[in-house]
Amino acid sequence: MNGNGFGRLFQFSTYGESHGDAMGVVVSGCPAGVELDEEKIQRELDRRKPGQSMITTSRGEPDEVSIHSGLQDGYTTGTPIGMTIENKDARSGKYEPFVTAPRPSHGDFTYSAKFGTRNWGGGGRSSARETVNWVAAGAVAQQVLEQSDYDVEIKAHVNKIGDVEAPEVTFEEMLEHTEENDVRCAHPETAEKMRELTDEYQKKGDSIGGSIYFEARGVPRGLGAPRFESFPSRLGRAMFSIPATTSVEYGLGTEASEWTGHDRNEDWEFGEDGDPVPVGNKHGGLQGGITTGQPIYGEATWHAPTSIPKEQTTVDWETGEEKNVQVVGRHDPVLPPRAVPVVEAMLWVTVLDFMLLAGRINPDRLDGDVGEYDTDYHPSSPHNE
Amino acid sequence: MNGNGFGRLFQFSTYGESHGDAMGVVVSGCPAGVELDEEKIQRELDRRKPGQSMITTSRGEPDEVSIHSGLQDGYTTGTPIGMTIENKDARSGKYEPFVTAPRPSHGDFTYSAKFGTRNWGGGGRSSARETVNWVAAGAVAQQVLEQSDYDVEIKAHVNKIGDVEAPEVTFEEMLEHTEENDVRCAHPETAEKMRELTDEYQKKGDSIGGSIYFEARGVPRGLGAPRFESFPSRLGRAMFSIPATTSVEYGLGTEASEWTGHDRNEDWEFGEDGDPVPVGNKHGGLQGGITTGQPIYGEATWHAPTSIPKEQTTVDWETGEEKNVQVVGRHDPVLPPRAVPVVEAMLWVTVLDFMLLAGRINPDRLDGDVGEYDTDYHPSSPHNE
Amino acid sequence: MNGNGFGRLFQFSTYGESHGDAMGVVVSGCPAGVELDEEKIQRELDRRKPGQSMITTSRGEPDEVSIHSGLQDGYTTGTPIGMTIENKDARSGKYEPFVTAPRPSHGDFTYSAKFGTRNWGGGGRSSARETVNWVAAGAVAQQVLEQSDYDVEIKAHVNKIGDVEAPEVTFEEMLEHTEENDVRCAHPETAEKMRELTDEYQKKGDSIGGSIYFEARGVPRGLGAPRFESFPSRLGRAMFSIPATTSVEYGLGTEASEWTGHDRNEDWEFGEDGDPVPVGNKHGGLQGGITTGQPIYGEATWHAPTSIPKEQTTVDWETGEEKNVQVVGRHDPVLPPRAVPVVEAMLWVTVLDFMLLAGRINPDRLDGDVGEYDTDYHPSSPHNE
Amino acid sequence: MNGNGFGRLFQFSTYGESHGDAMGVVVSGCPAGVELDEEKIQRELDRRKPGQSMITTSRGEPDEVSIHSGLQDGYTTGTPIGMTIENKDARSGKYEPFVTAPRPSHGDFTYSAKFGTRNWGGGGRSSARETVNWVAAGAVAQQVLEQSDYDVEIKAHVNKIGDVEAPEVTFEEMLEHTEENDVRCAHPETAEKMRELTDEYQKKGDSIGGSIYFEARGVPRGLGAPRFESFPSRLGRAMFSIPATTSVEYGLGTEASEWTGHDRNEDWEFGEDGDPVPVGNKHGGLQGGITTGQPIYGEATWHAPTSIPKEQTTVDWETGEEKNVQVVGRHDPVLPPRAVPVVEAMLWVTVLDFMLLAGRINPDRLDGDVGEYDTDYHPSSPHNE
Repeated sequence: MNGNGFGRLFQFSTYGESHGDAMGVVVSGCPAGVELDEEKIQRELDRRKPGQSMITTSRGEPDEVSIHSGLQDGYTTGTPIGMTIENKDARSGKYEPFVTAPRPSHGDFTYSAKFGTRNWGGGGRSSARETVNWVAAGAVAQQVLEQSDYDVEIKAHVNKIGDVEAPEVTFEEMLEHTEENDVRCAHPETAEKMRELTDEYQKKGDSIGGSIYFEARGVPRGLGAPRFESFPSRLGRAMFSIPATTSVEYGLGTEASEWTGHDRNEDWEFGEDGDPVPVGNKHGGLQGGITTGQPIYGEATWHAPTSIPKEQTTVDWETGEEKNVQVVGRHDPVLPPRAVPVVEAMLWVTVLDFMLLAGRINPDRLDGDVGEYDTDYHPSSPHNE
Repeated sequence: MNGNGFGRLFQFSTYGESHGDAMGVVVSGCPAGVELDEEKIQRELDRRKPGQSMITTSRGEPDEVSIHSGLQDGYTTGTPIGMTIENKDARSGKYEPFVTAPRPSHGDFTYSAKFGTRNWGGGGRSSARETVNWVAAGAVAQQVLEQSDYDVEIKAHVNKIGDVEAPEVTFEEMLEHTEENDVRCAHPETAEKMRELTDEYQKKGDSIGGSIYFEARGVPRGLGAPRFESFPSRLGRAMFSIPATTSVEYGLGTEASEWTGHDRNEDWEFGEDGDPVPVGNKHGGLQGGITTGQPIYGEATWHAPTSIPKEQTTVDWETGEEKNVQVVGRHDPVLPPRAVPVVEAMLWVTVLDFMLLAGRINPDRLDGDVGEYDTDYHPSSPHNE
Repeated sequence: MNGNGFGRLFQFSTYGESHGDAMGVVVSGCPAGVELDEEKIQRELDRRKPGQSMITTSRGEPDEVSIHSGLQDGYTTGTPIGMTIENKDARSGKYEPFVTAPRPSHGDFTYSAKFGTRNWGGGGRSSARETVNWVAAGAVAQQVLEQSDYDVEIKAHVNKIGDVEAPEVTFEEMLEHTEENDVRCAHPETAEKMRELTDEYQKKGDSIGGSIYFEARGVPRGLGAPRFESFPSRLGRAMFSIPATTSVEYGLGTEASEWTGHDRNEDWEFGEDGDPVPVGNKHGGLQGGITTGQPIYGEATWHAPTSIPKEQTTVDWETGEEKNVQVVGRHDPVLPPRAVPVVEAMLWVTVLDFMLLAGRINPDRLDGDVGEYDTDYHPSSPHNE
Repeated sequence: MNGNGFGRLFQFSTYGESHGDAMGVVVSGCPAGVELDEEKIQRELDRRKPGQSMITTSRGEPDEVSIHSGLQDGYTTGTPIGMTIENKDARSGKYEPFVTAPRPSHGDFTYSAKFGTRNWGGGGRSSARETVNWVAAGAVAQQVLEQSDYDVEIKAHVNKIGDVEAPEVTFEEMLEHTEENDVRCAHPETAEKMRELTDEYQKKGDSIGGSIYFEARGVPRGLGAPRFESFPSRLGRAMFSIPATTSVEYGLGTEASEWTGHDRNEDWEFGEDGDPVPVGNKHGGLQGGITTGQPIYGEATWHAPTSIPKEQTTVDWETGEEKNVQVVGRHDPVLPPRAVPVVEAMLWVTVLDFMLLAGRINPDRLDGDVGEYDTDYHPSSPHNE
């Protein structure tokens, strides 16, 4: 209702502003019995964290996660997992000129118009910094799925920055190459060109847009409810929640307008297991809003970061004067490279949520039937020692 | 949760399958005191109904709405508005070949894989026929907004079919021309070309994709919650709920990837009323997920209808055999022309819901303060006479 | 949000006023593959319907249910079940005196104060007539549970009217005797006294309060989430939603204040199957808000019907005058006898909802795994024939 | 859905177990512009905290709240308020005997049966310690209401322990006397007897049940939606969420069964402001599920604490043996005295939530209209300094 939570059975609620003292997330509805590896969560946070390369903000945040609840001897207990990530390197001073003079195309004005006030340091709640919480939640969802009977794989990479576009790559190439370069493009040569282009804009005090291709494999067929809780509906909501997203597509996306029914339609044949399978996957893994078992794939676009050192004009609603501004903080020149782990996190969360809702994974506990306590259970130590 | 409802304060829940005896929708959370014009609802249903032109299915549905509750003397009472639309011209016989042999790229297989069974006549619940309910709900939302203190206007038109694309049109042109032609394109010359193209595919026994441009004017600034209930999040969910949608964009959409921050950013100036306004609207009326007060606009794409007379191949899971099929029912050769009123309905609902949530429109009653009964109130007659 | 729906996975949304043309309910989230017996639904409606005895209103409603969707060949399809019950015997004339002069202790004034207006015939939306929808939804839930692998039984009876209180009865006595008498008390001698007492008040133009004892057997252990979605939380909400409920208790209820921990606590022993079971059931089947597997039982109280022929005083907010009123419609002299099927319905719905949420019953389909279409499936006829 | 959150517009989500390292709560949907006094929150936590008297557990928790987000210069910003309360004095050792041998009538077994495992130190998530989060959320709601245009007052006191029952007291007496004594009974002489009774049971190694009377004044009329979101429905859910609650009543409660309609009904008269008011308040401030503007009052019962030093019997599911146990931790001998602030907190939250939903208090900001930024706004310092 208030926009600070996502998910139905697997839910998370977040708090925190860019320059507050801590970011936090409560993961509610994680099944019990999952061995939760804190380092794996940390590894995902590290992929998103600032300062990891020259094309990310130089803000020095270690982004260390602390887990406060929901575990017994390293296993989830089915009760909420509270996590905190402290903010260590907030420098709000540079934002003082913008308190009553909104930065161009940022959320400054709309937040003030909605709430009458805002936490203005670093963009406050509107900052993409807040997605650190989402990545933590996604890393929990990922571990649940990895320990389930299903073999779901999710990967995203940057397929376009400015006018530099990557050729189609395989899922395996995505797994292999995405993390090799700073722009997170799975096509190494393109990655280099993207990097050069980004550097160029950064040097000019400007920024540039881009897009991400994502794919989920191994998602079983039959997930997604008709209509308003269809898989695409949830996916659309998830992706558009990421700050600065301006488009979401799946399957043929915008190109579908140019395809005829006959060319796009896919015949059915019997697969290896004797079940019907579609010949091809132009449908992007989704028919009638429900998964077919084929890979789910799509794209999303992010506009260029609005925080740029180039001179721009704004107005100060307190003084009533126009003024020139330069947003000289520590900012990313392009969003998709750091959005890759966020996109993946939202996919993990979305897929798991649908799996739980379909009873594919027991919502109460990963293993065993509800009602069966564990007779072998003998933890070595209480949680708090 | 189950996908059959949409909205938070202004909600609607639907039932009905393509070939069931009736479609139905319950609108819950409509403020009291709205003069509800049944004819206006009917007019919207007529825009969506089958058989309205040569490029829509010839199924003969009058789509007459009956209202069962929620009114007193023609005014809403704040209690749920139950509406029914009877199905009069369902002919399920033609669907018998597909009971155990899924139509290519339709929802037949996924519904059966999810539920083990399905209502197979006319595509059952997966049919776009079900959006008749949404249009009824949208027509209620529209009347609430029209009778409110706000001057919200919403309009959509078909801006692309196949490779025929309309040039940019003004909102006024949309209002004037959209309903003049069967394809619902606001640019008359393009409309003619679209119509020709559609006819051509229809003659070949094929179908074609297309897209819709939509715009909402007069939506006040400050609507939309941060993060997961941002305006784009709700918009994305709403649009992707419409069957066969493959992309949703707002503002610059996919093109945003090629714009630099400096070129896309918009300076602030003081508007006529002395308040800051952005210079331009490349942001599509949304900054930080919240409305700026500028027009909200975007696009969505629909793939070609999957029901085509051209021969295709499928498999029958009962007999274990391949077979050739022709989907020879009564089908639209292109979706966007009839999707225009559905898109508009989802926008009316979404905007109203945000207005109620922000307390912009009193959630309990359109006029007056909660707690004040109407001392002049003297209805001439009870509801049921 | 708006109070017109209940449930999470198994949900229902309702519409309709006492004197509107129809009542309606949409059941969303019913698993597919349930053989739905319309007569069983009707039988439950008949238990609740007016005019069934001398101590119920003489309003002549057949309360015939029509099902519009959600079925294929008599089996549920997992898509929403739309049901309508027409109102046939509404006579609003007698309510005209109360349009601007609220009946004592009724919802007339509060509805008008909230919404500024109201549907005033027969109490409109505030009328207990609306619970006909709940009973229809409950009858669906009951059939799902009856066809599941679980052996859940639910029964309620009237255990108190005025100062006449029934002794404790067994579940078997409830099953056997409750429906034998008009007051629905499972203790025949007490039933007679209750009946006499009720007649006496009815003759005086007055009414009387009462309470219901309810019990659910066979609910497996482990249901109910911690805290705000505990089983008692859901139960409390369900029961207090029934009009005129003034108390809800489970287990020892209000008496628990006088029990010591040692006397109330129940030791654990090993049951027949080797699992721990509590010795006794003073806990009412619920510990830590979660089911223990023991019968869940409790009580709820209904105040006396507010509509009485005895003279009372009210004020007319239009004329500004006091006036004497007699509510001379067709009214029940006591609520619990007709509330019994409503209480049972809310229990069926609540238990099923928890079963689905725990993955105990597959939320998508009663039989088989999601993803497995039915290879033997060959319906004889389409839904609409 | 998962039971870890409460509220619709004013929501809170919690995490934390009795012996985890911290408890935490995220308050989402608090309007902007509220001056949030941390000390007032602390004061409420102090009323609930352990070790405050001889009849509460001697666990030494300072229960100091830290606020991590949602503020700018001491005022709320409309974004989520994240709060943490560290656990300082958890001693899990004493719980080791119960890891596989459930304590009688506790949540040990049901949690294990639901989740297969549990956080067993101090009762983990099932511990009433978790209500510290609720009190923090309630203290925020209280401050919103206190700074609004409404004059809502909420108070509760212990009206019964064992067989010692307080006579009726006025709201003023509740305000004056409740906090004067350890048992939190507003009737001093009764308080003394309650204290003696409690001491007696504590000395015997036993515990005792009790009940709380609560009242809310100044709640405006017209709040509460029909049916499933009626005021009593929300109240019932709120109260039954508090651990160990076995009954909830409002107005005449269980006694309503013995009242006739004529005796319970209340005539209408014109009040001082010329509006209809009921003569009397046997209806407990609620008619048709909606507030009348009269005080809302009711009672709830808590069973005796289940943790008692007296010897009891349990079974160990690992060893398969019966064993005698004594729960010798630090426990309250009676629950209501410390439940008083929890009851009040749930009332503050519930009332505020209804006020926001009715648009009575602007959901986005306490002062001013949405869309109006604050031209005078000039904070002295960023949030994080």
